[in-house]
Amino acid sequence: MINKKIDLNCDMGEAFGAWPMGNDSALMELISSANVACGFHAGDATIMRKTAQLAIEKNVAVGAHPAFPDLQGFGRRNMQLSPQEVYDICVYQIGAMFGTVRALGGKLHHVKPHGALYNMAAKDAALAKAIAQATKAIHPDLILYGLSGSHLITEAEKIGLRTASEVFADRTYQNDGNLTPRTQANAMIESSQEAVNQVMMMIEKQVVISTEGREVGLKADTVCIHGDGIHAVEFARELRNTLLGRNIFIETIK
Amino acid sequence: MINKKIDLNCDMGEAFGAWPMGNDSALMELISSANVACGFHAGDATIMRKTAQLAIEKNVAVGAHPAFPDLQGFGRRNMQLSPQEVYDICVYQIGAMFGTVRALGGKLHHVKPHGALYNMAAKDAALAKAIAQATKAIHPDLILYGLSGSHLITEAEKIGLRTASEVFADRTYQNDGNLTPRTQANAMIESSQEAVNQVMMMIEKQVVISTEGREVGLKADTVCIHGDGIHAVEFARELRNTLLGRNIFIETIK
Amino acid sequence: MINKKIDLNCDMGEAFGAWPMGNDSALMELISSANVACGFHAGDATIMRKTAQLAIEKNVAVGAHPAFPDLQGFGRRNMQLSPQEVYDICVYQIGAMFGTVRALGGKLHHVKPHGALYNMAAKDAALAKAIAQATKAIHPDLILYGLSGSHLITEAEKIGLRTASEVFADRTYQNDGNLTPRTQANAMIESSQEAVNQVMMMIEKQVVISTEGREVGLKADTVCIHGDGIHAVEFARELRNTLLGRNIFIETIK
Amino acid sequence: MINKKIDLNCDMGEAFGAWPMGNDSALMELISSANVACGFHAGDATIMRKTAQLAIEKNVAVGAHPAFPDLQGFGRRNMQLSPQEVYDICVYQIGAMFGTVRALGGKLHHVKPHGALYNMAAKDAALAKAIAQATKAIHPDLILYGLSGSHLITEAEKIGLRTASEVFADRTYQNDGNLTPRTQANAMIESSQEAVNQVMMMIEKQVVISTEGREVGLKADTVCIHGDGIHAVEFARELRNTLLGRNIFIETIK
Repeated sequence: MINKKIDLNCDMGEAFGAWPMGNDSALMELISSANVACGFHAGDATIMRKTAQLAIEKNVAVGAHPAFPDLQGFGRRNMQLSPQEVYDICVYQIGAMFGTVRALGGKLHHVKPHGALYNMAAKDAALAKAIAQATKAIHPDLILYGLSGSHLITEAEKIGLRTASEVFADRTYQNDGNLTPRTQANAMIESSQEAVNQVMMMIEKQVVISTEGREVGLKADTVCIHGDGIHAVEFARELRNTLLGRNIFIETIK
Repeated sequence: MINKKIDLNCDMGEAFGAWPMGNDSALMELISSANVACGFHAGDATIMRKTAQLAIEKNVAVGAHPAFPDLQGFGRRNMQLSPQEVYDICVYQIGAMFGTVRALGGKLHHVKPHGALYNMAAKDAALAKAIAQATKAIHPDLILYGLSGSHLITEAEKIGLRTASEVFADRTYQNDGNLTPRTQANAMIESSQEAVNQVMMMIEKQVVISTEGREVGLKADTVCIHGDGIHAVEFARELRNTLLGRNIFIETIK
Repeated sequence: MINKKIDLNCDMGEAFGAWPMGNDSALMELISSANVACGFHAGDATIMRKTAQLAIEKNVAVGAHPAFPDLQGFGRRNMQLSPQEVYDICVYQIGAMFGTVRALGGKLHHVKPHGALYNMAAKDAALAKAIAQATKAIHPDLILYGLSGSHLITEAEKIGLRTASEVFADRTYQNDGNLTPRTQANAMIESSQEAVNQVMMMIEKQVVISTEGREVGLKADTVCIHGDGIHAVEFARELRNTLLGRNIFIETIK
Repeated sequence: MINKKIDLNCDMGEAFGAWPMGNDSALMELISSANVACGFHAGDATIMRKTAQLAIEKNVAVGAHPAFPDLQGFGRRNMQLSPQEVYDICVYQIGAMFGTVRALGGKLHHVKPHGALYNMAAKDAALAKAIAQATKAIHPDLILYGLSGSHLITEAEKIGLRTASEVFADRTYQNDGNLTPRTQANAMIESSQEAVNQVMMMIEKQVVISTEGREVGLKADTVCIHGDGIHAVEFARELRNTLLGRNIFIETIK
């Protein structure tokens, strides 16, 4: 049976100070959920306010996008933090985002960990649990976005948190359902047609073909669209049109 | 007529990472309100949690203590930020603290700007307004702590925020009601007896004697006790005992 | 009498981590001196190395471009540091850049303070002296770049440091020889023709016309070209061609 | 045969901004080499200057003590940086320290990586090589301090850098010659008598007894004394007296 709706999420607000990044205003027209950087890997208080404001104006759900404290490394370098430290930095960042959205009269919708934190927690139950608990501690209605089939989803479910199982349009998968690390040559799907095809298969069949050719089952509640490539907007538009053409409605997780 | 109660507030959680500061656990027994550093001049997510936890256990009201982004300068160096930038960094920091307290099952009580931000806003209506608006935007029940008679108090009142007019035990005052800058030799009151006397005069008569000998009117809702000196705990205990001996009850602002 | 040579300098290496900035590789073909960000307002260790490497390859003189510790504000926000603190952060940043160039087999050529530090020191002899002393302490052959006619030049000369009096192509001047602050509407010269004309007048007549129409004397050893605008490369090429067309040779300060 | 001299080194300048740490002035009387924090895990430009000044006054050799960029974690949390990134941050930090010492009229003597960087590089030849190359690139006369028997020593020797094989007074060893990680209960030697005995055995016999009771060979050029414990000064004095009592002269590596 076919999913009749899907959430498109994108990392947003990843500028910092004088440095712009991405094409937030164009992408905000095309997605249903925005993961807004919280100042640790990107974003600052001013950019967070502007990004959340833009999302609210476009009826895009606002999420917090907490990360390791690594501005220079854009939160993409593994750091060895204890689960307690991860809990603490998540409470801090989600709290800052919660306040930012609240100050705009909006409501925080979800939490999606960023970069190395996302990848490490996907494979490490203790880190995943820390993130889930921090999310619930800020507000029990928050939805945790995590890699489909990963500890992020199972740990969140264990404590009664709603989840969104995430799949990636332009990233390849390994046999175990994990993303191919960015350090590997075949990590990214360069062809937008292939990426659209992968998404369609994931939504319609709830499977993906791994880099080794194996069919791997997954759950596709939300599709991550990357906002930082040259063709990001173009691809998002193409994906959106394909989805709508197949009568798949684009809306955030309820 | 004599005030029958007074709030004693103290800056808390001003450790950072591996570096301890102050004597939070001893002081938390003696005060009624804690201003907890929010990570910009001191404090980090872990220290914020521990400090808020301690305050909640001791029935001390928890406040956010936002500052300029200046860890090395401990938030004591003037920085030229626009009112909008000040609003944004306050929303961020108060939000982070709001989330931290909420995650502990507690409730954020007040906001007191720190160091250079406090002093600059006391004299600058636009900065004071930005801080008051950020406070209100996070929660309209939050109380803004500010220098008695300063723009912090008047701007907060203009937008309907409750305020606590603050006086200082160990700082000297100028004719205009401002604190003598720390860069001047006579900024601090070294003798604890003199400091206690100054507090008593401020509470009972709502005046202070300036460094030039003039009697300056003020409103004393809350007394700031510094936590970082060698005799901080001793002084707090002495002040507390004197207050209780004169039937002045120590409790936070309601 | 006409200057037969001029130095064209440009701020370089102002990317940070994942965030690019400017068009360093194109501009490096057109200038004679590069002021390389040292990590406090922009730049990081990796970007410093790459930028210095590029400059060395293109026979462009490498300078250190120290700033206030304000990454979010890009070093453009005034901060109240003592002269001793300014000395210390300059020794640190110039030292880091000195080491970076040395590690590449090159030689550090000059120091130019950035943004708010540049502007504040231009008007404050104590800060200017601190920067000059830090420069000399790292190496007495370093040349201090500073606003023509400002304390940066006079304080450097007092301690026997060589200097380069700097003029700006695309910034307007006030009657006192200072730049019009960026907060004012008329701070920037938008027309590239006007900017070229201003430079030519400054080089050939050693004067500039202030925003109030007054002719203000100045010394033009080096012209600052901004690298962050859309037309930066185009303008630099235009200026370069005009200079060469008038037989003014472009080379760094010797 | 007995070594007739030994170097005592200690981490120094690990205060930051308003936060003091350790007892540098007392310890500086007792050691022969100081590893001065370079601002990434501790220390700032002002503290670096003061610490290097103090070392120079006491005839203690000054070394750079570069670390991962992790102020909150005090450089003790593993971070996944590429060898190139490690090279770059080492050039930056050693350069900053080189400049700081040079500005004081002194000469940088050695480099010792800090915390997680030290431990990771001890076991990882590529990281060790990056640190050794950065050290040599700043000045070929610099001596690299590293864990006895580790990649830090072998990689430095491969490129012709002088080395100092380091042993620890108050840390226990594993069978492979590595330090027991601080996360394990028996990582530290609490008894000062045991610590002195371990040092004596290491100097006189060039072996240590591992936590599993095995005799492990090592080379002891320099002994690391920790400066942050309560009894640090007392222990250093005891060790110093024991050494002098056995006619072992305390001097830095030449």
